[in-house]
Amino acid sequence: MNRRLGKASVKPEAPIYILESASIVGTKEGQGPLGLLFDQVGEDDMFGCNTWEEAESSLQKKAVGLALDKAGLKAEDISFLFAGDLLGQSIATSFGISSYQIPLFGVYGACSTCGESLALGAMSIAGGLADKVVCVTSSHFASAEKEFRFPLEYGNQRPLSATWTVTGSGAFVLGGEPSWIGKKARACITGITVGKIVDYGLKDSMNMGACMAPAAADTLAAHFEDFAVSPEEYDKIITGDLGKVGQKVLIDLLRDKGYDISGQHMDCGIEIFDGDTQDTHAGGSGCGCSAVTLSAYILRQLQKRNWKKVLFMPTGALLSKTSFNEGMSVPGIAHGLVLETVS
Amino acid sequence: MNRRLGKASVKPEAPIYILESASIVGTKEGQGPLGLLFDQVGEDDMFGCNTWEEAESSLQKKAVGLALDKAGLKAEDISFLFAGDLLGQSIATSFGISSYQIPLFGVYGACSTCGESLALGAMSIAGGLADKVVCVTSSHFASAEKEFRFPLEYGNQRPLSATWTVTGSGAFVLGGEPSWIGKKARACITGITVGKIVDYGLKDSMNMGACMAPAAADTLAAHFEDFAVSPEEYDKIITGDLGKVGQKVLIDLLRDKGYDISGQHMDCGIEIFDGDTQDTHAGGSGCGCSAVTLSAYILRQLQKRNWKKVLFMPTGALLSKTSFNEGMSVPGIAHGLVLETVS
Repeated sequence: MNRRLGKASVKPEAPIYILESASIVGTKEGQGPLGLLFDQVGEDDMFGCNTWEEAESSLQKKAVGLALDKAGLKAEDISFLFAGDLLGQSIATSFGISSYQIPLFGVYGACSTCGESLALGAMSIAGGLADKVVCVTSSHFASAEKEFRFPLEYGNQRPLSATWTVTGSGAFVLGGEPSWIGKKARACITGITVGKIVDYGLKDSMNMGACMAPAAADTLAAHFEDFAVSPEEYDKIITGDLGKVGQKVLIDLLRDKGYDISGQHMDCGIEIFDGDTQDTHAGGSGCGCSAVTLSAYILRQLQKRNWKKVLFMPTGALLSKTSFNEGMSVPGIAHGLVLETVS
Repeated sequence: MNRRLGKASVKPEAPIYILESASIVGTKEGQGPLGLLFDQVGEDDMFGCNTWEEAESSLQKKAVGLALDKAGLKAEDISFLFAGDLLGQSIATSFGISSYQIPLFGVYGACSTCGESLALGAMSIAGGLADKVVCVTSSHFASAEKEFRFPLEYGNQRPLSATWTVTGSGAFVLGGEPSWIGKKARACITGITVGKIVDYGLKDSMNMGACMAPAAADTLAAHFEDFAVSPEEYDKIITGDLGKVGQKVLIDLLRDKGYDISGQHMDCGIEIFDGDTQDTHAGGSGCGCSAVTLSAYILRQLQKRNWKKVLFMPTGALLSKTSFNEGMSVPGIAHGLVLETVS
């Protein structure tokens, strides 16, 4: 039986498998430290489209298509699609994945959306309500800057605490135990901790790492408590896009709660760019950041058994340009998934 | 066992109960035909707040609080919150429900979000992954006009095909069979059909009924096929906010598919306002429209056994001001729920 653990967690009766996945990124991500690991790198960031938003839509479409191809599946084999992005009214999703004609649950958790979509997808399979699902999220540097800050043409300055929105999309095909012969799943999901909104009142949209760190600390503490584990349980504890500033805040906040994750912590936003040479300041961010890093790097490490068990926890900053301009704070949210190697 | 039916539907093994619900609306909705049925009607549409967005947030907060009170439950009793709204990055939700500190799944399906949240909430309970959940959605006329069209101060003209975004929020407490004595649930959910994006290429954001009708027809046809039922199975087939224009299109499109729903069809957007005297043109719309009509009117009819089985299907128009200004179409989506009286 599926079990609820503590206040915020779920343990599926049987593991949910990440059967296949795909990642597609922009040029800057392709030049970064993980560049060679991505399935596709665009020649330029328009991806043959007329607008940044269309370009982001095309990323989702390609990532889903590639993940299905790699899994040897067709759109008809998929029960539900769980999808989202950062743009107002999730238009990258609406215009990206409609051609697959898969019943859709649109989700929004800012940059935590990759975690949210995987959690809901895994839960629907665990509950016997879906056979296979696809979870996809995306972000695009240019569409995000326009949506949240200023159009690129404005040429605004960015403080060192700012992060660089990743141009990319990651798609994941989830299912029960794979029945086909000779092909192993990439990893499996064995636990879920669902985050709640945590708002420390910070208002700086150019320092989202600090805004999100309290939510990451809250979900991590809930996870350790609900599953009765310590940080040492995991080879890596991986946040989505806290960046260098947020990482420090997270480690400090968790020390106050009695947990030391300094030995295990890794942040997708710190991994994806070389901050010294790529001028990305505190690191990468966006729905796409954790999604493409999961697909290209984290799942690879699990498959190679370099890591056996990790906690993957995308982090989201819940702001809009309207809320920012009205002087509201930037609350955070983070959803955690336990990922294990397939034995 | 929970069963998947056909390509898009789910039948939970046991009914999922709508234990309680609450509705709160603005002044104009309070003056409409359903005015006396809502739990709370605001004295003015600012609800004591400084901005329209804050006002919408306060609606979600009050609706959730009231639904919990009516159910005799506390926030700690709730496993997950499924919540969303129409604003960019769902800020009405982020700033509305954070004080409850319930693990949150943010969802986005435009005005279909009420259906999406109920579907996911019911699925999580059916799968044994949640005990009780709360589903909440909202919309606000002034924040939506600013988000999608023009600020109210601009005083723009509205064509007769336009709908009037409902100011209101509806919250629903779902759970398994109620164990307390002497209190019946308001209704139960016995089937779910998940919609996919349907895009006929229409581009008129002032005629969203026509944009959404193809999606409504698609989900309805999928539902009839998946459950092997005809429209006569239902006392009412209730769409969210097609309005008068969309209603005609839906009935015509379904006739082409071999289904006649003209005897059963009802639209929350048509019910909530008196088009002749309230100057609301084609009808009401918004996430809040279907949510408050469900809570105040539809569930009441089911409890009174005036209706025994209805299909409740909120409809969403997937546009943003960016996609509209870039000349994109307005795709639609609709999610259906079978609601029955509690015996």
